[in-house]
Amino acid sequence: MRQYVLPTYFNGESQLKLIGKDSQYFIKVLRLKIGDKIFSRDRNGLPYQLTLISYDKSSCVISVDKIESGDEIRSTDELPSYSGPYPKIHLFQCVCKGKKNESIIRMATELGVQSITLIQSKHCIAKKDSSNTKRFETIIKEAIQQSGSPIITKFNNVKSFDNFISSLDIPLFFFHQVNLDNDKTLKEKLKNFNTNTPIGILIGPEGGLSDEECDILLEKKCIPVMLKTNIMRAETAAVVAISSIHTLLMER
Amino acid sequence: MRQYVLPTYFNGESQLKLIGKDSQYFIKVLRLKIGDKIFSRDRNGLPYQLTLISYDKSSCVISVDKIESGDEIRSTDELPSYSGPYPKIHLFQCVCKGKKNESIIRMATELGVQSITLIQSKHCIAKKDSSNTKRFETIIKEAIQQSGSPIITKFNNVKSFDNFISSLDIPLFFFHQVNLDNDKTLKEKLKNFNTNTPIGILIGPEGGLSDEECDILLEKKCIPVMLKTNIMRAETAAVVAISSIHTLLMER
Repeated sequence: MRQYVLPTYFNGESQLKLIGKDSQYFIKVLRLKIGDKIFSRDRNGLPYQLTLISYDKSSCVISVDKIESGDEIRSTDELPSYSGPYPKIHLFQCVCKGKKNESIIRMATELGVQSITLIQSKHCIAKKDSSNTKRFETIIKEAIQQSGSPIITKFNNVKSFDNFISSLDIPLFFFHQVNLDNDKTLKEKLKNFNTNTPIGILIGPEGGLSDEECDILLEKKCIPVMLKTNIMRAETAAVVAISSIHTLLMER
Repeated sequence: MRQYVLPTYFNGESQLKLIGKDSQYFIKVLRLKIGDKIFSRDRNGLPYQLTLISYDKSSCVISVDKIESGDEIRSTDELPSYSGPYPKIHLFQCVCKGKKNESIIRMATELGVQSITLIQSKHCIAKKDSSNTKRFETIIKEAIQQSGSPIITKFNNVKSFDNFISSLDIPLFFFHQVNLDNDKTLKEKLKNFNTNTPIGILIGPEGGLSDEECDILLEKKCIPVMLKTNIMRAETAAVVAISSIHTLLMER
């Protein structure tokens, strides 16, 4: 089921007037008619039912009704979807070149990660400037709407590797190419985790994590993972890492 | 370890002169010096060791030595990588719009699928014309070289859904949004499969598979899978489906 993510300025109003892109989403993309209903979430992930009241060329008015647990959800877009539980995955992605960051952010949001934080590591070729933040937040909003994800993925601006490591407060899996002797399988490494445990995933940039960074991560008791597959580009690595952990936690 | 895929005209020669893009790959991309070695495979996946003998602006000469099992492999590019086993996955991908097909083909090759076949299904918006075949084959070659995949992924031109179904000779998993009652988990559905069993994966186009197509697939004893995650775009669905099956077969 597709959904609409309410604008940041929403504050519990029972009616909202939307303009510009938001209005177009209802009229042009979803092609709602007056009286049609659509499912919605606010920025905290709370569910609301929206009904289209009126519209003209440039704006529309919707009624906003909070959904209490037990309420029947009605939506004009009836595509069924999975409603949870979801693992609590936080993606830490070293900054990649250009559009790759967008592609990774879009796919990770579709897969329902809790948060995405960009990391500036030693081998990052691209420097992330904060002017991209708005673009990344728009991509996340679009991906939540399109995928019907119940998780309102949070975007965190770029952090240096040192800041990231010193503020890290959840268990972290990092993906790299170094094969360790007698290495456990990913399944064994996930033994003490479940869908309620926060899990961090660190994915290196195009050039990978440096040996020094790997040493620091090992010192901090982070968990190294070498996936049993080929060398992947950063964007493929992120989806495969999230999807592998998701699958192993869900398919028990 | 990166590798070079030998050109289609290679026929067991002990030296090869390469020109154009192939020569540039050695000199400009890998920046090999005379005497440097690189790992290589022919179109059947057989391994060869190449050594750069000489080069000028527009061409280079390499010696080609067949690698027998037990030979030590030397390569200037020492990035370690996983060498197998790999599940025998065949991707059947309904044709998507524009660049999406390229992105799916690139990622599926990186993940080491045996073959990729494009399918024209009812809800395909884009019509695949065969003029793209060369472009898709180039993408596969690049992805094999970059990822060091030991599997020389085969590309099959577009087939109609009916032709696909009538010539299907391996077990097929198809991914869709319809939730079945008392549905088994993907892990249970994979119980009788292992890394030696061929497995087909069918991914719908942007608009999904039609109800009629799903009925035909069920009649043919194909195995429906609804992944426990959000609604995914076709390109994300392909990677997640391959990666989930790969992970479950490898992590037993």
